[in-house]
Amino acid sequence: MKTPALALALVTGLAAALPAAAQFQKPEDATKYRQSTMFVMANHFGRIGAMVNNRAPYDAAAATANAELVVTMSRLHPTGFVEGTAGTQKGQANAAIWTKRAEFDTGMKAMQDEVGKLLTASRANNLDTLKAAFGEAAKACKACHDKFRNQ
Amino acid sequence: MKTPALALALVTGLAAALPAAAQFQKPEDATKYRQSTMFVMANHFGRIGAMVNNRAPYDAAAATANAELVVTMSRLHPTGFVEGTAGTQKGQANAAIWTKRAEFDTGMKAMQDEVGKLLTASRANNLDTLKAAFGEAAKACKACHDKFRNQ
Repeated sequence: MKTPALALALVTGLAAALPAAAQFQKPEDATKYRQSTMFVMANHFGRIGAMVNNRAPYDAAAATANAELVVTMSRLHPTGFVEGTAGTQKGQANAAIWTKRAEFDTGMKAMQDEVGKLLTASRANNLDTLKAAFGEAAKACKACHDKFRNQ
Repeated sequence: MKTPALALALVTGLAAALPAAAQFQKPEDATKYRQSTMFVMANHFGRIGAMVNNRAPYDAAAATANAELVVTMSRLHPTGFVEGTAGTQKGQANAAIWTKRAEFDTGMKAMQDEVGKLLTASRANNLDTLKAAFGEAAKACKACHDKFRNQ
């Protein structure tokens, strides 16, 4: 059996194997893909948030299952940012993504690193450890959204 | 390290651990969740489709990476069908889902079984094997959509 690390490597390899645009038949598909992966990621991140904010009972196995999904979505999310798909409405992707692409990519990588740490933390079976990693991951999400999402 | 099978078991366990409605703050979130997981699933299923229909080069590792994502999404998709979230427009969830829930669940399980077989087939490193499994999985998708999606 392959390990999740290998499965993730496959996903990452897949993302790297093709130019992003080639993965979508039309630009709207890229937009919908990044919005879909974001929605699923936010939902499962939020379920961990409910635990660390005492709105849901702490369940270490559920935290790990949610964190696995967050990590998987975090690998897919960047591939939807295809050139020429900036939005104009609040909450949509800002055109700065494509003029400051290196900075955007660095921010995305920082988020991926932090959600990776969140997954590791979820396995420690300790709510305080989970809480700390959740806070760092949330900061990494916010840093990118503050810069690259229309306000 | 945990295996993908165990990771999937965690995801499945997570889905079973809570009533579906409890996983979403509001009904619209459940609708958006099933639409998002469907979109991501369809995108990665479509990438395998492109290979089996000779619109993209056959790449066994990419087929497996895509099939892993299809399997993961197939576990999440059903949890978005929360009571009281039927749609009225074409392509949306039909109210029959909740009056024939057992039939719906059976159809969903059949789809999950077929995409599991697709993942296994993707590891055989043989395009004909992949093609056959893709066809069966596509049939399982269509069977449920024909019955439970507004026409």
